[in-house]
Amino acid sequence: MNTSEHEEETLDPESPEAWEALRTLGRRMVDDVMEYLRTVRERPVWKPLPAELRTTLKRPVPVEGEGAEAAYRDFVENVLPYPTGNIHPRFWGWVMGTGSPLGVLSEMLAAGMNCHVAGYEDAAARVEDQVLAWCRELLGLPEQASGLLVSGASMATLVGLAVARSEKAEGDVRRTGLWDLPRMTLYASRETHACVRRAAEVLGLGSDSLRLLPVDADFRVDVSALRAAIARDRAEGLRPFCVVGNAGTVNTGAVDDLEALADVASQEGLWFHVDGAFGALAALSPRLRPLLRGMERADSLAFDLHKWMHIPFEAGCVLVRSEAAHRRAFAYQTEYLAQMPRGLAARPSMFSEYGVQLTRGFRALKVWMSLKEHGAAKFARLIEQNVEQARALGQRVDAEPELQRLAPVSLNVVCFRYAGRGAPEERLDAWNRELLCRLHESGVAVPSYTTLGGRYCLRVCLTNHRTRREDLELFVQEVLRLGREIAGGAVKGT
Amino acid sequence: MNTSEHEEETLDPESPEAWEALRTLGRRMVDDVMEYLRTVRERPVWKPLPAELRTTLKRPVPVEGEGAEAAYRDFVENVLPYPTGNIHPRFWGWVMGTGSPLGVLSEMLAAGMNCHVAGYEDAAARVEDQVLAWCRELLGLPEQASGLLVSGASMATLVGLAVARSEKAEGDVRRTGLWDLPRMTLYASRETHACVRRAAEVLGLGSDSLRLLPVDADFRVDVSALRAAIARDRAEGLRPFCVVGNAGTVNTGAVDDLEALADVASQEGLWFHVDGAFGALAALSPRLRPLLRGMERADSLAFDLHKWMHIPFEAGCVLVRSEAAHRRAFAYQTEYLAQMPRGLAARPSMFSEYGVQLTRGFRALKVWMSLKEHGAAKFARLIEQNVEQARALGQRVDAEPELQRLAPVSLNVVCFRYAGRGAPEERLDAWNRELLCRLHESGVAVPSYTTLGGRYCLRVCLTNHRTRREDLELFVQEVLRLGREIAGGAVKGT
Repeated sequence: MNTSEHEEETLDPESPEAWEALRTLGRRMVDDVMEYLRTVRERPVWKPLPAELRTTLKRPVPVEGEGAEAAYRDFVENVLPYPTGNIHPRFWGWVMGTGSPLGVLSEMLAAGMNCHVAGYEDAAARVEDQVLAWCRELLGLPEQASGLLVSGASMATLVGLAVARSEKAEGDVRRTGLWDLPRMTLYASRETHACVRRAAEVLGLGSDSLRLLPVDADFRVDVSALRAAIARDRAEGLRPFCVVGNAGTVNTGAVDDLEALADVASQEGLWFHVDGAFGALAALSPRLRPLLRGMERADSLAFDLHKWMHIPFEAGCVLVRSEAAHRRAFAYQTEYLAQMPRGLAARPSMFSEYGVQLTRGFRALKVWMSLKEHGAAKFARLIEQNVEQARALGQRVDAEPELQRLAPVSLNVVCFRYAGRGAPEERLDAWNRELLCRLHESGVAVPSYTTLGGRYCLRVCLTNHRTRREDLELFVQEVLRLGREIAGGAVKGT
Repeated sequence: MNTSEHEEETLDPESPEAWEALRTLGRRMVDDVMEYLRTVRERPVWKPLPAELRTTLKRPVPVEGEGAEAAYRDFVENVLPYPTGNIHPRFWGWVMGTGSPLGVLSEMLAAGMNCHVAGYEDAAARVEDQVLAWCRELLGLPEQASGLLVSGASMATLVGLAVARSEKAEGDVRRTGLWDLPRMTLYASRETHACVRRAAEVLGLGSDSLRLLPVDADFRVDVSALRAAIARDRAEGLRPFCVVGNAGTVNTGAVDDLEALADVASQEGLWFHVDGAFGALAALSPRLRPLLRGMERADSLAFDLHKWMHIPFEAGCVLVRSEAAHRRAFAYQTEYLAQMPRGLAARPSMFSEYGVQLTRGFRALKVWMSLKEHGAAKFARLIEQNVEQARALGQRVDAEPELQRLAPVSLNVVCFRYAGRGAPEERLDAWNRELLCRLHESGVAVPSYTTLGGRYCLRVCLTNHRTRREDLELFVQEVLRLGREIAGGAVKGT
């Protein structure tokens, strides 16, 4: 081991020249990244990985370093050309976000400070306080509500449901666990995202405790079925504890009747959790806000800033109406985290008392920078733009005899399939699956897929600030072209 | 809403000039951040936040944007000067990491691609595969082990213990929950980090299920007490399921006898989880690796890359010996995530089937870049350097009559207090608390604190690649100076 000062090493460049070289490389990276973003439209949305990449990215651990320049060269050659594709204007798969140029630079600034946002007395904690206050304001929750920036809506859901469990259990769940308590049940529509089931599993409730309720023709939860399920469970001696409402389901973008769900929860004494992963942000728009009526009554609200607000991954948020309940579920004290009267650890409460993480990155900065750069009104207009594009695409699909829409366009999702002209139903799943593969492979557009009422369909989710109407028209043309090609030819599996 | 193409907006700059302006701003940011890092030694470690900052960072949500330049100006004036301080050479509080210049730039590159690493067929997933393979290789787990990059060791612990719960429960925990199962118990020393208790709480086991065992004079778990506790619980009809070993405890850096714990777990049929938040990385060093003997037998291993490997926050990792067990605890299938035969969703398994998150950022990139830049051997040398510094500091404390060491220096942590010359014991807690406040306020050095055997002490945790021996000497001098000042003067609370 080192025994004298002179041998002491660091990860920093070790000479003024080395610092200058790294600064020059950094400037080049900025140029390259900005050019990459500026020209994203000119590249395919996605392209298959070349076979040799599997080898290139399967090397033993480097024992000796090759330096920053060489590492960057490898990145530029082997990583940068093969992204997920979600930053491209014609990416509409699953529910992703598109990022933004200043968001990219903000991540560098946050990593530069590299603050440890467990909640110390530093600017990073204040910036997160500020961002959480903005989130409450934008989404209509009261100023007293507590909140936490998390990795995404899955974690936000886990936190929200953990608070619900802690508040509604007949006992001290944190101390004694679930073992001897009456079985608790929660309720959501069958269109609910799997993260709710995952949370029920992780929390030890079990997926059997999650009642997945039927939906109406608009894919909104059947509220009378909810009432009946609660009554049935109560009659069986179970303990209903939570209603989950959807502000934008993953399959079709449906918004449950949140006002009615809030009423049921309130009448039945249940916790009301809203999964607003992407849809909650529609509240930024005065025109769309009425769709979400009732959301502001949520006891806990999970949503993402990295989806419809285009903050680079990861940025999710959970808000909890009762700060005291939030703390009861997560706060703890240790001798190594005791509050100090002054100095760095003098902050009265830590973010780590509101969720699972102790070490937390400075993810608030990119949100703060983005809202300051663009203002909430612009994000609202971009959300309206996507909703308008979805409606237009829905109408375009309806106007095209070979295309068949499989769900109403509630918000920003369009589900449809290529149905040809009088093709036999039993072939359509295989046709559309093949169509989707060819679409991805062509790099023209990337929608995702789902199955609705047993029918496989393409699913276009418009959470993309780069999309233009012309992109959607190009996509429709390509779907028709590929559909005809597949319907006319011999296709594997048909 | 927008009705014609011409009104379509985007978050991207809207003209070549606007792109150029943002690129120029980005270059300036790189210059500023690199200069900030290069000169970090010249600034105080931490300084109190000015009162006006509370107002500055408590503004209503910006409705209209002010642009990137103005947002950056606000950042430079009001955020950048008030960091946590952990990147400074004289920061040794809690267990943090120090970041690195290329790590900072890597975060920008990752955000530039903004890949969605649920596990699609793209380069980001391959880079994470690669990084996980490197982690297995460096930490001695078999090639077949599965893994996941997560936010940090708290989440890694939650994942590891969720797998343990799922494998060892007498039933299908994911489906039926814990309600009707025999109570499961887990075991760890009382020096174990609170994230283990938190995981037990979140998982519905309850903190009562966690048996916190006594430790020996070196703060290592008492293995015979472990055997006795398991026997006692079995006799009471409970179901012991997991032993947690520490590779570096938070208070003193103690390493449990992992070989003995692996033996107990194996003999008793229990899951063996190792919390190696920072200590696991000592395995990179051939000289230190013997301390961790037995860690390679872990069924699950939680550790951080953002601590002793200086990856910018957040970067933690969980490894699970049995990929099948890992999948059984978390994998699920939905119609909207079904695997495609070809195209973007053709990857055989998704990372989201191994943990809580579905949306995941490209945190693998910064790890990949850092290991390629510096090589594993350099990280090993830096870890050795910190251990050597801790030993030297321990000796320095021992040589100073006014200082009193309160725990052995096992790895990289030194716990001691200012004890003056024959001062009454009842004053020492208050003296040292005041000493710590003044140290933080002075900005000279930031250690943290803990309580050992009821005695409050300063705690120096050396996970900092920028620290030099001269920093530690300066710190000792300052502790002596402040200690004498406090001992000689009237101090609040003494």
